[in-house]
Amino acid sequence: MTDALPPLDGVKFNTDGLIPAIAQDATSGEVLMMAWMNREALECTLREGIAVYWSRSRGKLWRKGESSGHVQHVKALYLDCDQDTVLMKVEQVGGIACHTGRRNCFFLERRGDEWVHAHAPVKDPNSIYGDTHGQ
Amino acid sequence: MTDALPPLDGVKFNTDGLIPAIAQDATSGEVLMMAWMNREALECTLREGIAVYWSRSRGKLWRKGESSGHVQHVKALYLDCDQDTVLMKVEQVGGIACHTGRRNCFFLERRGDEWVHAHAPVKDPNSIYGDTHGQ
Repeated sequence: MTDALPPLDGVKFNTDGLIPAIAQDATSGEVLMMAWMNREALECTLREGIAVYWSRSRGKLWRKGESSGHVQHVKALYLDCDQDTVLMKVEQVGGIACHTGRRNCFFLERRGDEWVHAHAPVKDPNSIYGDTHGQ
Repeated sequence: MTDALPPLDGVKFNTDGLIPAIAQDATSGEVLMMAWMNREALECTLREGIAVYWSRSRGKLWRKGESSGHVQHVKALYLDCDQDTVLMKVEQVGGIACHTGRRNCFFLERRGDEWVHAHAPVKDPNSIYGDTHGQ
């Protein structure tokens, strides 16, 4: 273990040029979601102070909240020991991170042999996105 | 085979057969680490109640703490809305999740144009692993 600190160049993107990025609520500590960033998304996140991901399904940069208004203001950003995972502490506008209208995306809880809904939407996603289904 | 395994249909493993798994301290809410599970690792985690990952570098199942003693007892396990990320709330034995001897793996904090060490090891990794460098 060296004490040398990596420049942004030391960030290890995978063979698709992506790195997983975890968003955690800076106040409650709740893990809100995990999505992916490419180098440009990470640079935009650092420059703009809001979470910018790479949408693998849409193949483009995704400024979280661009449709919903549920922007994530980045309060701190960390890299892990292997330099291949990002953690952000964020202020979640609207208190809703998930496109289903829930506080966070991790609402399927394993209990025994089943997945159960651990928490319900706080808002109808149709009222967030209208007829479209964006994030 | 004695223990029938619960069906995990619906869990979306990537093209390498893996799913990212986030470990969060069940008490403090601290995000400890992110690693990967294949189907067998997830099944073992659910059956054994401890975090079992797939070590990509070693190409085998990795019962977290098998070398260090820093086992993660799983208190709850969640899947996200896209069913492609796992979140576990764990009790971290020894209070050390990182192979560097730190509480958690996310100790490189971006401040301005630099990565700085946000927190120091609580234990010398050599005293955890001896001369080997395991996790």
